[in-house]
Amino acid sequence: MAVYTDITEDDLKRFLTEYDVGDLTSYKGIAEGVENSNFLLHTTRDPLILTLYEKRVEKSDLPFFLGLMQHLAARGLSCPLPLPRRDGALLGTLSGRPAALISFLEGMWLRKPEARHCRDVGAALAKMHIAGEGFTLTRPNALSLDGWHTLWEKSEARADEVEKGLQAEIRGELAFLAANWPKDLPAGVIHADLFPDNVFFLGDGLSGLIDFYFACNDLLAYDVSICLNAWCFEKDGSYNMTKGMALLEGYESVRPLSRAEAEALPILSRGSALRFFLTRLYDWLTTPPDALVVKKDPLEYLRKLRFHAAVSSVGEYGLSRP
Amino acid sequence: MAVYTDITEDDLKRFLTEYDVGDLTSYKGIAEGVENSNFLLHTTRDPLILTLYEKRVEKSDLPFFLGLMQHLAARGLSCPLPLPRRDGALLGTLSGRPAALISFLEGMWLRKPEARHCRDVGAALAKMHIAGEGFTLTRPNALSLDGWHTLWEKSEARADEVEKGLQAEIRGELAFLAANWPKDLPAGVIHADLFPDNVFFLGDGLSGLIDFYFACNDLLAYDVSICLNAWCFEKDGSYNMTKGMALLEGYESVRPLSRAEAEALPILSRGSALRFFLTRLYDWLTTPPDALVVKKDPLEYLRKLRFHAAVSSVGEYGLSRP
Repeated sequence: MAVYTDITEDDLKRFLTEYDVGDLTSYKGIAEGVENSNFLLHTTRDPLILTLYEKRVEKSDLPFFLGLMQHLAARGLSCPLPLPRRDGALLGTLSGRPAALISFLEGMWLRKPEARHCRDVGAALAKMHIAGEGFTLTRPNALSLDGWHTLWEKSEARADEVEKGLQAEIRGELAFLAANWPKDLPAGVIHADLFPDNVFFLGDGLSGLIDFYFACNDLLAYDVSICLNAWCFEKDGSYNMTKGMALLEGYESVRPLSRAEAEALPILSRGSALRFFLTRLYDWLTTPPDALVVKKDPLEYLRKLRFHAAVSSVGEYGLSRP
Repeated sequence: MAVYTDITEDDLKRFLTEYDVGDLTSYKGIAEGVENSNFLLHTTRDPLILTLYEKRVEKSDLPFFLGLMQHLAARGLSCPLPLPRRDGALLGTLSGRPAALISFLEGMWLRKPEARHCRDVGAALAKMHIAGEGFTLTRPNALSLDGWHTLWEKSEARADEVEKGLQAEIRGELAFLAANWPKDLPAGVIHADLFPDNVFFLGDGLSGLIDFYFACNDLLAYDVSICLNAWCFEKDGSYNMTKGMALLEGYESVRPLSRAEAEALPILSRGSALRFFLTRLYDWLTTPPDALVVKKDPLEYLRKLRFHAAVSSVGEYGLSRP
């Protein structure tokens, strides 16, 4: 939950004069997004989301993120649409921060998703991968192999505080991934953070995807592996084959995976489990114990990593191949 | 900012079946209120506020708070209205907490209020005092003389950590207030926390009062003194006579203060300054330094207290008397 920067009504009204959005009737800071400050605005027309980009977001990345949402929405993907100012710019300044006004997407994220939702998520991810084609800006994935090493260097010395033997295990894992990471798979724009809180459902269906602030260029099947990690494990750590099967079927109903992509799922999933393990480990070790934030347990992702390392065939994910 | 308890879509939908409010289309945790968890709901009809009452709120006080909002709204005061369930109850249960659905009040609280807003606040406070007449439930003010002593006992030993000499000064202040506190002034239902973030403005006017969770029975003029402290001092600690005059004129345009009430303003304002000083001092001393909450400086209210202690005539507040 996050409202790092407050705004005055006067500043907000001045900011809004650059847009054609009706008159402001209320604004509330909302507890969504961990990197930025978000406000839900009511106006005499449609509700809107106002995002103030905080210091953790690189300002030079904003044209990629905002342009991508515009590109995806123009190609029919349901996602928030940045509204242009009267001068055409997608970005303004408010309370000293870069700020954007974004369409409000109705729907709710599911605290307890079921297999049918995983199917919808798989299909939506594939649609996003296809809709992303032709987007001309690029952004390398800062949280791939090189990024993992940089992150690991910051936590390595204290890793065994979390679990004995962790230092040796992660060193081995990083070496394995560096030596075996696939290179020749289809690449494109990936979401890279499609967790349940970034997918909205309304009525019986998926109503849209949000939060493209980790989006980047990388292997498309790596994005699938992130979703397997984010959607298809139970609280007790077990892999839910029914959900995995549904997610993969949903994905392949729109964009079938090549044989090489399918076979790479175990190592890609090891990599994406390691990626979330490393950011959580870093936060775990650096967040003060008294801070009023929920520290996410890094070991959840270590257990997922170990699961993937033990997978011997993609059939174990529920992927059916003739 | 506060969302202490999260809710699942299924639980929320089940909760809403008890109400006649249309279909849910989204819900977002909002960063308002420090005692409870608040969500802004969109439905196929009107937006709503859902409040989950956390442990710091006495469950036995809820009928007073909710009944008061209903009583005030029925008498024409613009304030949030608790919606009754189909069975007539104002309170349900959600995620293990008492929960109420409350009408959404459009408008924005002012980060930088001006004198004309102070006038509106004074008038709205007086309207609330009059609208509160006839409300049959009562709730003693837990944060009056006795409560201050209880609070002080928890901080007394460490008070000089905040400022040297503070222990002796506050002891003297408490003794003075106990000996001189007025008793025979008009009493009724007071808001007791009418700070800028609890007053909404829309367009050119005040659109309503919110957050009645400190409301109680006490001296009406004490509520005026809380507003003088909350609205009429500048960031540099100086009293803004123009704002004070506007607030008092606004109040008296609806409910003139008696001579005794007017003359009691300095001591009542000392008391209300002490009340906020003591809760802030307690929070200051007990909130861990790393916690991600903004600790409000207790000395702000000590400076206000000293200002009131030095007032020799109510003219110094801007109150004109023939």
